[in-house]
Order: sequence, then C-alpha cells, then structure tokens
Amino acid sequence: MTGGAGAVVLVSGGMDSLVTAAIASREHRTAFLHITYGQRTAARERQAFDRIAAHYDIATTLICDLSYLSAIGGSSLTDRAQSIPTHGVDISAIPNTYVPFRNAHILSIAVSWAETLGAGAIYIGAVEEDSSGYPDCSESFLQAFEIAANRGTRPETGLTIQAPLLHMRKSEIVARGRELDVPFELSWSCYKESERACGVCDSCRLRRGAFEANGLEDPIPYA
Amino acid sequence: MTGGAGAVVLVSGGMDSLVTAAIASREHRTAFLHITYGQRTAARERQAFDRIAAHYDIATTLICDLSYLSAIGGSSLTDRAQSIPTHGVDISAIPNTYVPFRNAHILSIAVSWAETLGAGAIYIGAVEEDSSGYPDCSESFLQAFEIAANRGTRPETGLTIQAPLLHMRKSEIVARGRELDVPFELSWSCYKESERACGVCDSCRLRRGAFEANGLEDPIPYA
Repeated sequence: MTGGAGAVVLVSGGMDSLVTAAIASREHRTAFLHITYGQRTAARERQAFDRIAAHYDIATTLICDLSYLSAIGGSSLTDRAQSIPTHGVDISAIPNTYVPFRNAHILSIAVSWAETLGAGAIYIGAVEEDSSGYPDCSESFLQAFEIAANRGTRPETGLTIQAPLLHMRKSEIVARGRELDVPFELSWSCYKESERACGVCDSCRLRRGAFEANGLEDPIPYA
Repeated sequence: MTGGAGAVVLVSGGMDSLVTAAIASREHRTAFLHITYGQRTAARERQAFDRIAAHYDIATTLICDLSYLSAIGGSSLTDRAQSIPTHGVDISAIPNTYVPFRNAHILSIAVSWAETLGAGAIYIGAVEEDSSGYPDCSESFLQAFEIAANRGTRPETGLTIQAPLLHMRKSEIVARGRELDVPFELSWSCYKESERACGVCDSCRLRRGAFEANGLEDPIPYA
C-alpha cells in the first residue's frame, strides 16, 4: 500500500472487472482492491486477481476478507446448503446468488482506501442490463452511494464512482475488452467450480454467450 | 442468529449506543450488532457489548471483525504510531481519531443482516452536535445512506435508519439514559485504556462532562 494512485479499481477477477481495470488504467494510475467473502470459488478468484494485477504491473493492491458475509448468509454463493441456479437468468426475479447488499461493503472499503490514498475515483464493473438483476448493481444504487460517500468523508476528499460497463450488454463488454487487448484467459467468472468452468451457471452462460455473439471462443477451459 | 427481530441495533459498547439500544428495545424486538476493527480498546469494548446484550436479554447477536480497517489505516484509533488527542474537541477540524468512512462499513453489515433477518429498522447511536465532528456521523450522510440502502436491497426489504440521539447534546443523552434506567456502569467509552478510563481523551472528556452537567457521577472507574 503506497500512495500515488489516482483511482481504486474493484477487481474480482471476473471478465467485467478485468475490462473495467483496463479502462481505468488508460486514464489513471490505479490501485486494485480484491475481496474474498467465503464464496465457493474464493481461491480461484484470488488467483485470477493476482494474475491480472501482475499483467497490469499494479504495485498498490489490497485484499480484504469479508468472511462475515458468510455468517450473515442469505445467498447460495456463501451458503453451501443452497444450490447454484443453472436454469438461465430470469430478469424478473432476484436470484439466490444475490449476496445481500454486497456491493455496499466492497464500495465502503474502496472509499476508505481511496480517502487514505488520496485517490479521486473508484471503478466498479457493475452491469445493470443483461445481468443477474442484483439491486446493488443498479445505477440508482451507485448514484445514491456516491452521494453518501461524499457526505461521509472529509470535505476535501471528493470521490466519483465510475461504472463504465453499466449500460453495456455482455457482448459489448467482450468487444470492448478485445479492443483493449485484455487478457481474458486470466479471468474467472464461474460460480461453481475452480478447475474448469461449469458452463451452466448463470455467470458461465452469460459469459459464453457474449463470446459467441462476437464470433470468438472464450479462452478459459470449460468442463 | 435466529429470526424474529424487528430492529438491528449497532452496539459498540459505549454510552451512546447503550442509550440507543434502550430506546430501540422499547419499540422493537432487537438484534445487536458489534464490530471490532483492530482498534486499541477492542477487547474492553467487546466485554461491554457482552454485558449490555446480557442485561437486555438479547438472543440474536452478531460480532464482525473488520480488521482490514487497520490495514487501510488513516486513524489514530487503529494506527499505534499516531497518538490519541487529549486537548479537547476542536469542532472546526476532523480529529485523527476519525476512521475513514467507518460508519458506512458498519451500516452495510447492519443492512445485510437486517435484510436476511427481515428486520425493518436499523438503530445507530450517532451524535452530530456536541461530538467529534466525524463526517460519517452527520445527518446528511445517514439520510443518503438510507436511500442507498433501499436502492441496493430487494424492493420488499424497506429499511429505515434511526439515529435517535443525533441532535442531542451529551448531557441530554445521559439524562435520557437515566430516565430509561440504563446500566451506564456496563458501558465503555475511553479511546486509550482498558482497565480504568483515562479521563483525558476526547471521548472521556465528553462523557464525564455530560455526567457532571447532570449533577451525577459516572459509575465507571477513572485513572
């Protein structure tokens, strides 16, 4: 943790955060933040984070453990008693992979860290359309949180929350990543497995479909 | 963690959260949330929390460790290299005891837990006037966070954030606590020490002054 970063980027290790990191790194000297929270694929996501941070030569990184989210429960991603849905995304309902209010925890850490580093921007790879419909990925939530962040920190801090993928479709995210020559092979999106992506969970289905729509093959291994 | 609670109360173990817990417990069946974050007096605050929860016979409690706040730094409460101020509260400046955006982390946990429990209210003992001037204790922050909480959770969740002490002076908080017969002797407010309160840190000075203004003696031991 050294200073000098202009932006904090939330990097889960998935495809969306990878493309977001590439966009932020063109504009700013960036610091990468990664969260583990007792989710099923935590070790695999951490490996993806480490590889992506090395690829972009990021010296300022922070890993935070929010394992209390497992204690709170309420999600199939942290509660092994619930099964991961594989029936496709139903945009009219919030799926059981929703971790209650997760992005507020992650953004709070980003805000505290940005205030300490003196960074003025926070980048998050939230996607509102063509996604799982989590309320904490919505533009209205992110706008409200940005206001709360500025009221709850020092007057001179002055933060913006940037979500450059918010209104993109998944296929557009793949296309943008390709333009930026991002290392898709280093990212990991599957909710279920850690060796080969399952190919059937909602996250895999959205990802694979996005590559297919671009006439591309996803470079990660599938079962 | 069982269900059935109508309100989640943030209970640090200090005087303000004790009086807030007493107020909330008159209106609701309550669940108590306590946070440790690597602060100097964490063990003593946890002891105060346990005693207060026992006093009010609270079955639903959650303790969360946010020790990553120490890794982020930026505060004398978590960074032993910085000294705790004892020169009195200067309301024109934010003191070095400010932990960047701390209340957002704590409120995010409360929101996630309330959503999982089905509780509709969150009580926080924030005090805006006659306090240390932390931006994340301001009414404008709490109002913005309440909006973010409702936009970032399920539509049916519907949460309110209650801060019944927000506009009270410290002396009024002692008076209200006395009316409610709260066990002041179980609470702990000192920033520095764990056996006897130091009596000189900002938190001790505000607390002692409030008892004196009521013609009362604070029942906790002072050095």
